[in-house]
Amino acid sequence: MTLCEIGNTHYHFKQNGRIWKTPVAGLPEVKLEADEAIYVISVNEVAERKLARKYRTFSLEPFISLDSIYHGLGVDRAAACMAVDTGVIVDAGSAITVDVMRDSVHLGGFIYPGLTKFKEMYARISPRLQKAMTFSLDLESLPQSTGEAISFGVVMPLVSAVKALSRNKQIYLTGGDGAYFARYFEGTIVDQLLVFKGMERIIANFEGVFDEKV
Amino acid sequence: MTLCEIGNTHYHFKQNGRIWKTPVAGLPEVKLEADEAIYVISVNEVAERKLARKYRTFSLEPFISLDSIYHGLGVDRAAACMAVDTGVIVDAGSAITVDVMRDSVHLGGFIYPGLTKFKEMYARISPRLQKAMTFSLDLESLPQSTGEAISFGVVMPLVSAVKALSRNKQIYLTGGDGAYFARYFEGTIVDQLLVFKGMERIIANFEGVFDEKV
Repeated sequence: MTLCEIGNTHYHFKQNGRIWKTPVAGLPEVKLEADEAIYVISVNEVAERKLARKYRTFSLEPFISLDSIYHGLGVDRAAACMAVDTGVIVDAGSAITVDVMRDSVHLGGFIYPGLTKFKEMYARISPRLQKAMTFSLDLESLPQSTGEAISFGVVMPLVSAVKALSRNKQIYLTGGDGAYFARYFEGTIVDQLLVFKGMERIIANFEGVFDEKV
Repeated sequence: MTLCEIGNTHYHFKQNGRIWKTPVAGLPEVKLEADEAIYVISVNEVAERKLARKYRTFSLEPFISLDSIYHGLGVDRAAACMAVDTGVIVDAGSAITVDVMRDSVHLGGFIYPGLTKFKEMYARISPRLQKAMTFSLDLESLPQSTGEAISFGVVMPLVSAVKALSRNKQIYLTGGDGAYFARYFEGTIVDQLLVFKGMERIIANFEGVFDEKV
């Protein structure tokens, strides 16, 4: 089975236990069985169309059956939520999304800018805030310099918010910067495969309905 | 007595109980007594020099006597801290600074981007995040739309962080967006004069040393 999650910057593939990513600027090379389609979840229409011109693709979007009243939930967030019954999912990429699941129901979530976006934003506010950020912070100690103050200003509010929302639920970290946050929580699960697991669950839900090769 | 706090975008004046601001792009009109100097706290060297070409100015920066080990604390933050013995000071402008004071000692602080900067940043991440932000949120309810999710993503982490740091200390809100946050805390003091009060305290500390008209 070949899965592809298409984000703003990269194609993320999973095929027979192998994971890789390639920039959306290029056209990915994928070896497929005869007639095999790539299962796709995409937030990037241009990149999705490009992939579809070269390969057979099959969008899982219409088959996402997440129990949620949220309007406009990104398909990548929805797929990750499909992989978790109860827990808080923090997906840290160019944006950091935080979603809360309880008993397979999506209770809602929020969007925080990604780490690199914060760096850009501080530099735009003032040249004085154009400092290297450190993410090995001790959140129990108040910052004593500008570099510490901006790093703490990114991490500590997010960590406080996630802890406040989690209320002892399991926290799942995923996305390119997900692992950075692991040190700030106890017992967190870092799982870069969460979206793929959600995609696999979507496919499993429909195993009887459509065949793997579509 | 005439006080002027010079920020990144505005000259802020206080004279005989009257408060006003003018953009740093222009040159402010100030009526002064003969030989009167304007007491200045400035984070904007260009605007400070411009003011000094037209008026007698007296920088209070060398007279700030804040007990702190923080390296590179902005003079506006230091002045606001001088006005508070014990409490948490949230100054919400183009950046949002949070500082903790206990028994006249500055324990440290952090820097969060300002509300308008977040709006710009979300738009830069994705056109999907270019939504009107609402700041009359119920932080007890998880967001159910993109507009709510980005507004919540700005406000709730900051509020969680400030609450975690305050530990029952009085919270003081100041700066152009300070009043926005009042609804999210109980018993908060909104005080737009905090920097001026700090400047007055700096001057009072030196009353015997230099005369009001310098």
